[in-house]
Amino acid sequence: MGLNQLYLVQPQKFPDAQATALATGAADLLESAIVTETLSEALTGCAFAIGLSARKRYLSHETVNARKAAIEAVKIATSQPVAFVFGTEMSGLTNAELDCCQLLSMIPANPDYSSLNLAAAVQIICYELRMAITQGEITVTESLPLANNEELERFYTHLEETLVHIGFLNPNTPKKLGERMRRIYARARLEKEEVSLLRGVLTLTQEPRKHNKY
Amino acid sequence: MGLNQLYLVQPQKFPDAQATALATGAADLLESAIVTETLSEALTGCAFAIGLSARKRYLSHETVNARKAAIEAVKIATSQPVAFVFGTEMSGLTNAELDCCQLLSMIPANPDYSSLNLAAAVQIICYELRMAITQGEITVTESLPLANNEELERFYTHLEETLVHIGFLNPNTPKKLGERMRRIYARARLEKEEVSLLRGVLTLTQEPRKHNKY
Repeated sequence: MGLNQLYLVQPQKFPDAQATALATGAADLLESAIVTETLSEALTGCAFAIGLSARKRYLSHETVNARKAAIEAVKIATSQPVAFVFGTEMSGLTNAELDCCQLLSMIPANPDYSSLNLAAAVQIICYELRMAITQGEITVTESLPLANNEELERFYTHLEETLVHIGFLNPNTPKKLGERMRRIYARARLEKEEVSLLRGVLTLTQEPRKHNKY
Repeated sequence: MGLNQLYLVQPQKFPDAQATALATGAADLLESAIVTETLSEALTGCAFAIGLSARKRYLSHETVNARKAAIEAVKIATSQPVAFVFGTEMSGLTNAELDCCQLLSMIPANPDYSSLNLAAAVQIICYELRMAITQGEITVTESLPLANNEELERFYTHLEETLVHIGFLNPNTPKKLGERMRRIYARARLEKEEVSLLRGVLTLTQEPRKHNKY
């Protein structure tokens, strides 16, 4: 998701061959992780720490959902360092650790089973941070050129002629069905090549001598 | 995340002891999974299928981000069944499988490493579906009662008196600093109990005879 500053507080094992293997393409992130003895040490210089919690245990902390937390974090992070704090797989954050945070965040979940795996929780938060930063933009490779208006009009005319030709449309009142057809193809946002393809079909439809006779 | 209809197309092994072990509290979901031979069989009766793709391979498919896909899916699902279609861990969906879908969706990611683990992708989509359905509501246990206006005003008066008492505020022009103090505590949204606690501190601050002399 594009994050690259990982702090590990008292990891059981580090570096760990299994973790490195699972990191595959992101092994550089693990290698550059900073290991500290205490959470407070990890948060040195950090202006805003957001703790993840599966349940609202600590009543007096402000608690928001993951999306709001990410938006808040991105806002503050434009000028000062911000941290998301995750607890252990087994028991999450302790109250003392939550007290190092300025805000708590929960990931909305089925209340009957609201505790996510640590990896899943980290994934959601990193995803929400990316969404907050990029506005949800996706990297889409260039699409083929769309058909322009004249090409579409010529296609619609061709289509209508063909539908009249095969007896599907009444040449005296073609309008209604013609409009519905236009809407179908409008929604499809046809590319230039697709218009050629469809017009090829129409041409052959109008020339029954070329039809295969089975 | 509250979903409960899982279809598995040609799983390598099913049921599988490792999968059941990893499912922990959600083992019922795995047990009730429906296994089919083909994707088309799994999609029987489904009105709208959304395929997940890490890259835009199939140019002519409409592609939206995960959030838009979830919103679209929830809209259609109010009246007709909708499916999200995920490919294998190793290679994702084939083009033939994508052709069974009406919409493609991508999860925004670091373009240098845009392919998520299957579990991570499923987690994001399920999370976005829950967000679309619940509007991001989190189940928060009832908080302690907030202090009401009179309690807050009595506290502010007490605070100002104390700050004058200890020489922090000038009794002739207390206004400016008093306002800043009010804003700090306003942001904190004090609970009744917290106001009592703070007023206890103020009372002791004004009674130096009770201060411990170290």
